[in-house]
Amino acid sequence: MEPVFGLPINIPPRSSGERLRALHGQLRAAILAGRLQPGLRLPSTRSLADACGVSRNTAMAAYDLLSSEGYLASRPGAGTYVANVLPDLTQRRAPRERRQQPMSDRRLNAFWRDSAGMLDLPRPSALQFDFRLGIPDVVHFPMDVWRRLSSRALRAYSKAHLGYDFAHGRPVLREAIARYVSFSRAVACQADDITVTAGAQQAFDLLARILVTPGRTVVAVENPGYPPVRAAFAAAGAKVVAVPVDEEGLVVERLPANAAVVCVTPSHQFPLGSAMSARRRAALLEFAHARGAVVIEDDYDAEFRFGERPLDALQTLDRTESVFYVGTFSKSLFPALRLGFAVVPAWARRALGAAKRCADSHSSPIMQEALAAFITQGHLARHVRRMRRVYGARREVLLSRLREEFGRWLEPVPSVAGLHLAAQALGSVDVAAVVESAREREVGVYPVERFRVGKGGGVSGLVFGYGALDEAGIVAGLARLRRVFGK
Amino acid sequence: MEPVFGLPINIPPRSSGERLRALHGQLRAAILAGRLQPGLRLPSTRSLADACGVSRNTAMAAYDLLSSEGYLASRPGAGTYVANVLPDLTQRRAPRERRQQPMSDRRLNAFWRDSAGMLDLPRPSALQFDFRLGIPDVVHFPMDVWRRLSSRALRAYSKAHLGYDFAHGRPVLREAIARYVSFSRAVACQADDITVTAGAQQAFDLLARILVTPGRTVVAVENPGYPPVRAAFAAAGAKVVAVPVDEEGLVVERLPANAAVVCVTPSHQFPLGSAMSARRRAALLEFAHARGAVVIEDDYDAEFRFGERPLDALQTLDRTESVFYVGTFSKSLFPALRLGFAVVPAWARRALGAAKRCADSHSSPIMQEALAAFITQGHLARHVRRMRRVYGARREVLLSRLREEFGRWLEPVPSVAGLHLAAQALGSVDVAAVVESAREREVGVYPVERFRVGKGGGVSGLVFGYGALDEAGIVAGLARLRRVFGK
Repeated sequence: MEPVFGLPINIPPRSSGERLRALHGQLRAAILAGRLQPGLRLPSTRSLADACGVSRNTAMAAYDLLSSEGYLASRPGAGTYVANVLPDLTQRRAPRERRQQPMSDRRLNAFWRDSAGMLDLPRPSALQFDFRLGIPDVVHFPMDVWRRLSSRALRAYSKAHLGYDFAHGRPVLREAIARYVSFSRAVACQADDITVTAGAQQAFDLLARILVTPGRTVVAVENPGYPPVRAAFAAAGAKVVAVPVDEEGLVVERLPANAAVVCVTPSHQFPLGSAMSARRRAALLEFAHARGAVVIEDDYDAEFRFGERPLDALQTLDRTESVFYVGTFSKSLFPALRLGFAVVPAWARRALGAAKRCADSHSSPIMQEALAAFITQGHLARHVRRMRRVYGARREVLLSRLREEFGRWLEPVPSVAGLHLAAQALGSVDVAAVVESAREREVGVYPVERFRVGKGGGVSGLVFGYGALDEAGIVAGLARLRRVFGK
Repeated sequence: MEPVFGLPINIPPRSSGERLRALHGQLRAAILAGRLQPGLRLPSTRSLADACGVSRNTAMAAYDLLSSEGYLASRPGAGTYVANVLPDLTQRRAPRERRQQPMSDRRLNAFWRDSAGMLDLPRPSALQFDFRLGIPDVVHFPMDVWRRLSSRALRAYSKAHLGYDFAHGRPVLREAIARYVSFSRAVACQADDITVTAGAQQAFDLLARILVTPGRTVVAVENPGYPPVRAAFAAAGAKVVAVPVDEEGLVVERLPANAAVVCVTPSHQFPLGSAMSARRRAALLEFAHARGAVVIEDDYDAEFRFGERPLDALQTLDRTESVFYVGTFSKSLFPALRLGFAVVPAWARRALGAAKRCADSHSSPIMQEALAAFITQGHLARHVRRMRRVYGARREVLLSRLREEFGRWLEPVPSVAGLHLAAQALGSVDVAAVVESAREREVGVYPVERFRVGKGGGVSGLVFGYGALDEAGIVAGLARLRRVFGK
């Protein structure tokens, strides 16, 4: 390889993917060091490519990068030369006087200064047998179909000259979702009722924003319950009240009389897994109707039901436009999709659309079009049906092993749906110690207590997700867990 | 075509894409009408396909949909049969007693009840020559490259068993963005400083949430300015103060002494287009330092600069960790990508990540991986360089025509960057009447007044976006506009 301007340029082997980076970095360093002087005309990309033994595309890319960074300039006839005015890197590069500041600061508002930790997630686990919650299995997902549909959506998009888009979501997707949930969950809705969101979490967050008056609105959540829902309402300034849950779901009689919003998981209580009884459903709707309260029905994983017929959704039973139904495609497709939706009563629709526009303008129209095609072509129904079998088998294995081998310590909580199962701890089981010892054996199980606010009372136990572990993994993980209990 | 159970099933022609829908709908109707009775065993998918003249895949998809909806069930050995327990559709289908409710409601908080209209967008234009703002031209975008990179990202994702992801963004993208803006905009940052957001709008919204104490925090915005930024801070409960702009940018001397947050567009003022002078930049940073205020630097389209070298970003000049720099890929790639970022001082990082997690968990890791590859392989720099030429040529045409033919009425505002140009109205030009008459001639131009809060004062004029019109379109649109002025 020939030197370029006397510079020995070292280019890594072709397969390393680092060639452009190396070429760019070494040219830049030479310019910064003054070895390539301002005004100096550079060799053509072809000569550079030959000299360094890289492709001409790589040479062009290096010049493009350097030009966009201000190191190179070009003029017709004069070719490419080292720019006169260099970014003043020396000044910028000087070690910046970073004051020793805390990671929090009085410039933050009190809520986020004090509560940021509430939303810290545990680091992604490296455990061998992790009964993680809320993670679907993507191995069986028809990625080839999805790839084809999203490529097609991208192609259509690039021809459509779209600018910014509908805040509520693309009409074709709203239509597809309305039809899908009308039948799969008997949720009474039409396309106009649907607002597409960035996963269920954004639906909760936007609803919190339009429904809560900071410092005033009382919001009831389940205890134990799903922490990110609590966080969204707390962040919006609500007075969040945690209301206990029993084997019939939320204890409606314990709702504070002034609750203006009630968040529930009636199909599959998070994390206990029980379904809200018909009696409690009626009582909750009666409460909402009598007090002018609204109900947020989080139906996060109810597509995966294993019984004959599910109880009606609250939304289906509602006659007073009090219920917001929230669904997600994070479990039925995959979390990286970041698409969910809310079924929204007419009176809140315009406000919710405005809040969505304020939050992030709209969700990706390309992903939305691909999802619409996935639903209308029947792939979603087919995939859900397939995964119902897969998850059902895992659930059976998990349940039977828990009953056969852990009966002295754990009693599974009855449930008919979802991607996880809870088991109540019996007698003197030290749940925290079990979780800790299991972790040392590469088994991840989760204490019900993690999802509870306040001390004492309520079920103590463990939660097992079976979306991320197949049947063999479940068996092996439980065998290790058995040794923890056997100690 | 043979009848199925004596039902005449009508299937539309193959090319219509409606075959599945027709088959599914007619079978469902027959079940609902009781013509296919519970317990009835259905023909195999092969027989159904033959009978109706559809493919076997379509027949299977129809059964899958009906099964997932609860109309059909199957048992090994018993095949597929009409389910016993039908969803109670009759009840649900009864015309719902929808109260005549206003689109607003006391259950909404006061802000969204009163302000939802503030974020209503004009309907997508059907004008022939629309000088829309903020829309890039995607015709020249290397969609084939993007498609390849996003397919690859999807493939990698489907093998990686990812669950939920980092709130701040994927490390590879944060690294790529940091390196890109370090050089292209001389913004001093590293990967840790970057938070990936759903477009710049989400960055403003999240910053509003962590920086504003409702009812207390005073936030200064430019007047005229970008309405969605104003909206995000108003929605968070800030006292928003609109501060005038002149040819040197924000009039720093007019900032309220108690402003805790100052939002500016120093590279290319929105909508006037002027760059903030060096003097004002220094004064603004001094203000922030002296009063403990923070500056939000919105650098929405500064990649497209047409002068020699841009002024340093405020972030580059900042020595007190007072500046949040916000960038977007909506202009340099395309808006449907929904990715932007903020460069965040250390003291606010944890709170911002928590707010992002609360808002929507995280942005799509697939899109993030594709974008990271697009940047590190040099495609972004190359595309920006190409588009700088394209937009530069359009801007030249627009400027020269405005000067030559509209000199009596309009005076272009000097600017060196971006995708739009403003022109000040001279003398007695009735801007509103011009906009209206132009619209009747299929020409979209936008009054500066639309972006101003409060009455009177300040520049009156028109804004011309040139992202959505090519040179010929600009020439033709201006010719029509000329006739409006010539009247």
